[in-house]
Amino acid sequence: MNGPATTGDQPLRILVVGTGLIGTSVGLAATARGHQVWLSDRDREHVREAEAIGAGRRLPEEWIPFDLVVVAVPPSAAAGVIAEALRAYPDTTVTDVSSVKAPVIAELARRRADLRRFVGGHPMAGRETSGPGAANAELFHGRTWLLTPTREAEPDRVELVAQLAASTGAAVREMPAQLHDRAVALTSHAPQVVSSLMAARLADADSQTVAVAGQGLRDVVRIAGSDPDLWADILCTNAQEVAAVLHALRHDLDGIVGALDGANGEATVARLIAAGNRGSEMLPGKHGGGVAPDYVDVPVEVPDAPGELGRLFLAAGRHGVNLEDVRIEHTDGRLTAIAHLYVLPEVESSLREALAAGAWLVLQ
Amino acid sequence: MNGPATTGDQPLRILVVGTGLIGTSVGLAATARGHQVWLSDRDREHVREAEAIGAGRRLPEEWIPFDLVVVAVPPSAAAGVIAEALRAYPDTTVTDVSSVKAPVIAELARRRADLRRFVGGHPMAGRETSGPGAANAELFHGRTWLLTPTREAEPDRVELVAQLAASTGAAVREMPAQLHDRAVALTSHAPQVVSSLMAARLADADSQTVAVAGQGLRDVVRIAGSDPDLWADILCTNAQEVAAVLHALRHDLDGIVGALDGANGEATVARLIAAGNRGSEMLPGKHGGGVAPDYVDVPVEVPDAPGELGRLFLAAGRHGVNLEDVRIEHTDGRLTAIAHLYVLPEVESSLREALAAGAWLVLQ
Repeated sequence: MNGPATTGDQPLRILVVGTGLIGTSVGLAATARGHQVWLSDRDREHVREAEAIGAGRRLPEEWIPFDLVVVAVPPSAAAGVIAEALRAYPDTTVTDVSSVKAPVIAELARRRADLRRFVGGHPMAGRETSGPGAANAELFHGRTWLLTPTREAEPDRVELVAQLAASTGAAVREMPAQLHDRAVALTSHAPQVVSSLMAARLADADSQTVAVAGQGLRDVVRIAGSDPDLWADILCTNAQEVAAVLHALRHDLDGIVGALDGANGEATVARLIAAGNRGSEMLPGKHGGGVAPDYVDVPVEVPDAPGELGRLFLAAGRHGVNLEDVRIEHTDGRLTAIAHLYVLPEVESSLREALAAGAWLVLQ
Repeated sequence: MNGPATTGDQPLRILVVGTGLIGTSVGLAATARGHQVWLSDRDREHVREAEAIGAGRRLPEEWIPFDLVVVAVPPSAAAGVIAEALRAYPDTTVTDVSSVKAPVIAELARRRADLRRFVGGHPMAGRETSGPGAANAELFHGRTWLLTPTREAEPDRVELVAQLAASTGAAVREMPAQLHDRAVALTSHAPQVVSSLMAARLADADSQTVAVAGQGLRDVVRIAGSDPDLWADILCTNAQEVAAVLHALRHDLDGIVGALDGANGEATVARLIAAGNRGSEMLPGKHGGGVAPDYVDVPVEVPDAPGELGRLFLAAGRHGVNLEDVRIEHTDGRLTAIAHLYVLPEVESSLREALAAGAWLVLQ
């Protein structure tokens, strides 16, 4: 074994196993960067579709000495496919894209797979859509791609996978598998359950009831449109970590329900809301907690006529104001929307004046 | 009794009881429309603050024959203050702004208050902020203002309150109090609990864990920054309706936790996610379910440099493309953001071409 090829040397020979949204997007991205990509999937129609949009070519009969195999199948199937790839290609580096890592590694260890050549990965590019038709060479651009190498993994192979991930435009970070699973249980898997639980309550509601919904509900259930089978697979593969979060959440919920069912529950309810205040402030980045603390919100009414939103941005841009963030709020029963323009405090007054001079209705 | 004055006739004499965010904003809006506004609050500092920003003047010693009293106190205190106002001003129309209606009316009936002169109201203009300092004459512009008149309420008085609400720029709708409480329990109060429950899980998490948070979690917990005392009051006043939603939600949660703790839980979990799919599709309007079904999403990378977001909107606007909606997605670990531009399908390709020609990185 001469060690793995690197993306700096020459075009890599890459096999993508699983041509759903993520696998096909990896194929498109790798092809766009000059690598040779082959595709394989249990579903021949998916392979045909992925091949048709240029993600690579279908796997031929003859054996190919791949530099890298990317396993892009649902988490519950990942370990089996990875183990098979490690066996079939004895010099090849194998990575995967599963959103659950530790159970996959544990299963590989049980199967006595060669963990020196395996580097687990998780490109965090979730979508409401799925399948090869939604795939895109730029899907990973600007996203985080987590790698969870074990101690057995050879450094050159970790570097190879990191280079491929970085070449797609993703921000690559390393993290132990166990910590990864705990982190995504808290920040991705439990939020999916919570959003679905709330949205499920709307399924049987009458339209008159749902008609008063505001932006708050829309935000809470935005991710509730996710694919049921894929998410059932993800949640059940990361069952232990997800259950730990949901057990704690249910304990809090029991407290709230008990407080509402009894009398004088205000203190209990207020404690939960206050804990939520603290939790939402934990979110990293300038937009943690939903409203940027460093920016001023300038809400502006936007009439429902062609071009109004663009005209508003144009008006702000013409006056040299840098928009740090934008959020559009829709209210039922009105044709207008409210555009929240987030700007630095020092430009707030000049933006307000400029918009008011342009006959925009600035709301606060 | 000559029936109530109308806003069409002459300036109304309005008393606002409770000078928090909503009461002070009502005072500002009514003053801006030429009405005479007096202010009262248990907290003298709040009255002073509201008076200082022009929401009205403080209530004098002498009795004034008000045309309208607006009670803007927390839901649990509303009935007492409304009953007192109906007694103190025997010809005056009284309204309130509580986000819970039926328990207030039931309490008024128990106190044998004159329900002919009471018209309950609920301007749906929630904010993460509170207090008179956040008040604004345009707070209600573009929002829904629900009225929940009882059968006893005199039509002229309903009309008076509706006119005042409409004059602030709100969309006025009538709804029976019981239906209102059920609707807001489902669409506002339960989502607040769910968002706070999820955010509370983050309160004790370490920063490394929270660092992988994506836009999904941010959306779910956006409203978790709400005021604990006010929301404890709201939730406990509407306890019965909120508990009904949360009992059903807990039943679903128990099913999920049981499925995760046991084996072969995929079917149970998939059923919940699928129910959430259906529920999120129930949301009214073109943006129901988070992604507008009639529009195409054109995601564009936005570098973190001054003016980039404005420059993007400018580029779209210059090519005559009408942006139907905009959503900004922030990814941890990258300085860039992704702007999702929602447009009609027929203009997608020309927008993509125009942006690509301007060296924008269009992502799918």
